[in-house]
Amino acid sequence: MRPSGRAIDALRPVFIQPGFARHAEGSALIRMGGTEVLCAATVETRVPSFLRGKGQGWVTAEYGMLPRATHSRGQREAAKGKQTGRTQEIQRLIARALRAVVDLKALGEISVTVDCDVLNADGGTRCAAITGAWVALRLALEKLVRAGTLPALPIKGQVAAISCGLTDDGPVLDLDYREDSAASADANFVLTADGGIVEIQGTAEKDPFTEAQFNTLMRLARTGTAELFRIQTAIVEEALKA
Amino acid sequence: MRPSGRAIDALRPVFIQPGFARHAEGSALIRMGGTEVLCAATVETRVPSFLRGKGQGWVTAEYGMLPRATHSRGQREAAKGKQTGRTQEIQRLIARALRAVVDLKALGEISVTVDCDVLNADGGTRCAAITGAWVALRLALEKLVRAGTLPALPIKGQVAAISCGLTDDGPVLDLDYREDSAASADANFVLTADGGIVEIQGTAEKDPFTEAQFNTLMRLARTGTAELFRIQTAIVEEALKA
Amino acid sequence: MRPSGRAIDALRPVFIQPGFARHAEGSALIRMGGTEVLCAATVETRVPSFLRGKGQGWVTAEYGMLPRATHSRGQREAAKGKQTGRTQEIQRLIARALRAVVDLKALGEISVTVDCDVLNADGGTRCAAITGAWVALRLALEKLVRAGTLPALPIKGQVAAISCGLTDDGPVLDLDYREDSAASADANFVLTADGGIVEIQGTAEKDPFTEAQFNTLMRLARTGTAELFRIQTAIVEEALKA
Amino acid sequence: MRPSGRAIDALRPVFIQPGFARHAEGSALIRMGGTEVLCAATVETRVPSFLRGKGQGWVTAEYGMLPRATHSRGQREAAKGKQTGRTQEIQRLIARALRAVVDLKALGEISVTVDCDVLNADGGTRCAAITGAWVALRLALEKLVRAGTLPALPIKGQVAAISCGLTDDGPVLDLDYREDSAASADANFVLTADGGIVEIQGTAEKDPFTEAQFNTLMRLARTGTAELFRIQTAIVEEALKA
Amino acid sequence: MRPSGRAIDALRPVFIQPGFARHAEGSALIRMGGTEVLCAATVETRVPSFLRGKGQGWVTAEYGMLPRATHSRGQREAAKGKQTGRTQEIQRLIARALRAVVDLKALGEISVTVDCDVLNADGGTRCAAITGAWVALRLALEKLVRAGTLPALPIKGQVAAISCGLTDDGPVLDLDYREDSAASADANFVLTADGGIVEIQGTAEKDPFTEAQFNTLMRLARTGTAELFRIQTAIVEEALKA
Amino acid sequence: MRPSGRAIDALRPVFIQPGFARHAEGSALIRMGGTEVLCAATVETRVPSFLRGKGQGWVTAEYGMLPRATHSRGQREAAKGKQTGRTQEIQRLIARALRAVVDLKALGEISVTVDCDVLNADGGTRCAAITGAWVALRLALEKLVRAGTLPALPIKGQVAAISCGLTDDGPVLDLDYREDSAASADANFVLTADGGIVEIQGTAEKDPFTEAQFNTLMRLARTGTAELFRIQTAIVEEALKA
Repeated sequence: MRPSGRAIDALRPVFIQPGFARHAEGSALIRMGGTEVLCAATVETRVPSFLRGKGQGWVTAEYGMLPRATHSRGQREAAKGKQTGRTQEIQRLIARALRAVVDLKALGEISVTVDCDVLNADGGTRCAAITGAWVALRLALEKLVRAGTLPALPIKGQVAAISCGLTDDGPVLDLDYREDSAASADANFVLTADGGIVEIQGTAEKDPFTEAQFNTLMRLARTGTAELFRIQTAIVEEALKA
Repeated sequence: MRPSGRAIDALRPVFIQPGFARHAEGSALIRMGGTEVLCAATVETRVPSFLRGKGQGWVTAEYGMLPRATHSRGQREAAKGKQTGRTQEIQRLIARALRAVVDLKALGEISVTVDCDVLNADGGTRCAAITGAWVALRLALEKLVRAGTLPALPIKGQVAAISCGLTDDGPVLDLDYREDSAASADANFVLTADGGIVEIQGTAEKDPFTEAQFNTLMRLARTGTAELFRIQTAIVEEALKA
Repeated sequence: MRPSGRAIDALRPVFIQPGFARHAEGSALIRMGGTEVLCAATVETRVPSFLRGKGQGWVTAEYGMLPRATHSRGQREAAKGKQTGRTQEIQRLIARALRAVVDLKALGEISVTVDCDVLNADGGTRCAAITGAWVALRLALEKLVRAGTLPALPIKGQVAAISCGLTDDGPVLDLDYREDSAASADANFVLTADGGIVEIQGTAEKDPFTEAQFNTLMRLARTGTAELFRIQTAIVEEALKA
Repeated sequence: MRPSGRAIDALRPVFIQPGFARHAEGSALIRMGGTEVLCAATVETRVPSFLRGKGQGWVTAEYGMLPRATHSRGQREAAKGKQTGRTQEIQRLIARALRAVVDLKALGEISVTVDCDVLNADGGTRCAAITGAWVALRLALEKLVRAGTLPALPIKGQVAAISCGLTDDGPVLDLDYREDSAASADANFVLTADGGIVEIQGTAEKDPFTEAQFNTLMRLARTGTAELFRIQTAIVEEALKA
Repeated sequence: MRPSGRAIDALRPVFIQPGFARHAEGSALIRMGGTEVLCAATVETRVPSFLRGKGQGWVTAEYGMLPRATHSRGQREAAKGKQTGRTQEIQRLIARALRAVVDLKALGEISVTVDCDVLNADGGTRCAAITGAWVALRLALEKLVRAGTLPALPIKGQVAAISCGLTDDGPVLDLDYREDSAASADANFVLTADGGIVEIQGTAEKDPFTEAQFNTLMRLARTGTAELFRIQTAIVEEALKA
Repeated sequence: MRPSGRAIDALRPVFIQPGFARHAEGSALIRMGGTEVLCAATVETRVPSFLRGKGQGWVTAEYGMLPRATHSRGQREAAKGKQTGRTQEIQRLIARALRAVVDLKALGEISVTVDCDVLNADGGTRCAAITGAWVALRLALEKLVRAGTLPALPIKGQVAAISCGLTDDGPVLDLDYREDSAASADANFVLTADGGIVEIQGTAEKDPFTEAQFNTLMRLARTGTAELFRIQTAIVEEALKA
């Protein structure tokens, strides 16, 4: 029995509220249990200098956590004057995940920045950020299509992410903070709706784990992301009807 | 007639949701029209080094704006590696406003940090932050009283803030972004419920203004803060009942 | 009786020495009692990027304090690697004060930066800086007129600033450091020679103050700036004759 | 046929020179083809503040690349004033890999920092760094045992790392720079000599990959690390005899 | 004939005004022609951590230049967020020069920081800073003796500095900015009143120079510093009488 | 008898290995006893902005020390976020030394950056860096000549550097770390093969020294650099034959 009472392969309750960031071209506030991330996509008609004149676009991401999103207050990165290694690692991960499902050539000389800011943290913030960021990005790109800026959606697939881990209860899906801090290993899976793997990050927090254990985690991740893809799709459809 | 259709002396709709930041000792999400600020109070049983051993507490504040809280995306301060002068000015203002109504001696060697993060911006973010921060602080201190850490609330008064400005429609209360960017002068008033002035900041954006104009703005501010004090009181009462 | 023996409404002795910074287009060393600020105006024929091609100029200011301008040595901001919030707040104030009396359209695509560096500090440095900066700016712009770069002085008015405060001796004009650190409230007034208000900053250091008290401070400020305007005028006339 | 002429499952030539950093408690210069990394372990009898008094040690790592280790010169991070996200990500990975095989309790209140500096880069620098860092760490800890500071080696296992990727030649082992920049996916495997997994990082650079492809990469990694474990063991034995 | 009309071995007019920084324990405003440096010595009863408990004192220096001390405005180091290499080089030089003539053991656990800030620059600022800093330091230490904190002056000698250079007029003493920027070589000599050499820095700006030329520069430096020692002595005597 | 057993005027064993940095246009790993510096020259067909359009080139240098090049580990400058004053002083010295022997006009709009990174430190790192940097620069420029980019070598001379110092054994050549930390004075001489002086830096570490002592140090430096010039020449000839 997990601390939260959830089954081994159960996600926390997931809610996605599109349009939370009123000025953004696309946005989504995603809640997974006690974790809450605001994802806001900004479209700009320019590209970073290393892409200028190459006829393709770019997708990038930034990640932040409000100082009191966590149990004890963390120092504000803006006040400290630099982003931690953890922050940079996560924002690079989110950006790679999104670029894996965007057709950058079809996007043209446009760049999209997705800001993912954690309002409340209870484990799995990077995965929630990826799942929410895809919705924000999808809505922003739709806007470009509706405005006639793009002839068609430059999106090749649907991406979502979930963490799994080895705990005292065995391998479990979607760790909350309590489980995460006690897990002997955890892994983040970034998967696509058509079965592809975009990114795998597995880490032994205590002792090394086995390939069999790792394969179990991957099966759990497939279960979890299947549910996330359904939710993303429903939310996007609803938002586009409005 | 103001762009928003509001009367000269009308506030925008104000909502305050207590408890939004789940881990914070006290918190409030304040919405004033299109402006939305998350205020989270953190209590720590230590004081800054300049106060150590003096038997008194401290209250401070930090302010931030999510990159896409605004019409066009602003650079993330954490990525830039420093806070702008505007950010520092605002967080110093919020902190002074709160300290003016706290009895620091009665607080004892405890410090409270109130983080005010703007999720959506449509003018008046520093004033909304002060009004919301007081609620977050009030709830956090109540918690200390209920836990028996403090014998009584170390609060001397109730503080709220509102901006007024000189626009083409004359002097008006509670400027939104559109009004603010066209105003010839604006002023922020930080007032207490018992009629005291905590801070006045009046600035001519174009031409200097007169003392008579300034006095009109102050009268509008008194009207606006009277309403804010009523809302703060209602929210705190309700939150404490829960 | 004030600690300095001054009357309630008496300024400290004021001296302004134009031309102290030999290379600057205009400069003034202003002394108000024990406070001494070197103001140096630099003219450059370019504007910040956000104004390029808009056919108007810009006026900005920077503020600094020598490490040992104060009773105990402060850390050098250049060594620390960043300017304090206080420094940034003051330099933004000086810049706004100057821009309020310059016709930026008439200035054309020219920018003026006024550096205000405190050599000795005894209270009121930001006000002395504004009063001295106007002289430096005035002399620098005159130079542009004499050189034929500008057809006429792009100056709309004369600006000076003074602090007032509530002390144990009641409301007083032009606080020195001793008075300032004990005052229950202080306010800085940036006024123009024709009676306009450019900026008001009033702050309760201890308890909130009343509107009546605030009005008394404003009357004192009018007395003080009247004297400052006379001194500025005399110095500028003399300097231009030389 | 791979560009280098290597077989699909062939490592580049590997050389490890122990003792290169003369002052370090343990060091190894590792060369894998054109990639060359200097690993130097420093032992200090103190621990980071979050571990003080907990009776356990710590192992951490730092990573750097000489500006001209690469084809075109990169800006020096010390001159830029900050480490890139990539640098931070890599040094966190190296540190986790080492900690996974050290018994921190047995280490006691001692910390080891392993500096991994890339002198020449031709792909796979993070993996070479991990493989070399283990040798440096092993030698440094041996020194503590010989000096009587520790009763026994606080090492639980042997760790090495290798990259694999999907290229036009199919799945291959130990990518060099040319292969790495053209690969559609790559993965870094950090494995232990007794078959455990310490870390897996798989990333789709272009299109998502399949689970079958991923499993092939893992098999290649096992082949490669088996060879690396043999080399590490031989070098350590030889170095300890000297 | 030199541009300034000075003889080959003539200093510029030198004035030293003690006590300019009113709060400093010792201070001197030194003017050498168009170069003007404010030197302020701060005494603190603590030493840097590397000297704690060693029963000796420390003398250090910081150097800065006001943005408009020069012909064209330089960026403010505090705004840029770092000190230039030139600034750091100069402040290290000043500190070494002062420490060479202070008996740090006799000083005890006291540290003196001498801030040297250039108000106007016309060449030779580092040499003027050293010459003025010695006066500021001397006066500050005298104060400690008079207060009974120290039994005797912990000063072993008198130090001054001067630049010499090879110009189109041959080897000359005390270069001003015009000469300095055209010189083919220049050298800074930090000498003591009893004939010792504390520091020599000779640099070929264009072509290498010869040993004979270098010896001529050293002879000029001896002439110049002899005059500076006389001036320092007279100023200190006068200041101590007051 | 010196601690190392060397004669008063004996260099430590010197080895120079050209081509160590495989990607650099020219490189040299120089070893002088226990000091080891990797010098890598990068050629870029652009110049710094202050030289644009002036038809001349530029030569600059950067210096770094691996954290564990020294007896005890130093903090990594990239992690600290800034280069120390010492680092900046040294890299400016190296750059000046190289520019003194390059014909910048003949170089054309090309810039060369020489990175000097200390792998192992045992005194004299800045001098070894200069001596090695000249070899790296020479090889890089030769490459430009062979590629036809330049018609002839834009080199006016050969430069090398050596430290000398006053120790308990009297004046000695080429101080190692042990001697350096105990010397009462040391001096770095940057000389050219045809007898010119490029830079002299003499510093009294304890008491001031005399002109006679200084002249002895210079004679030692001539002896030492004569040997270094022979080694540089031999290495370059050999490398160019290969």
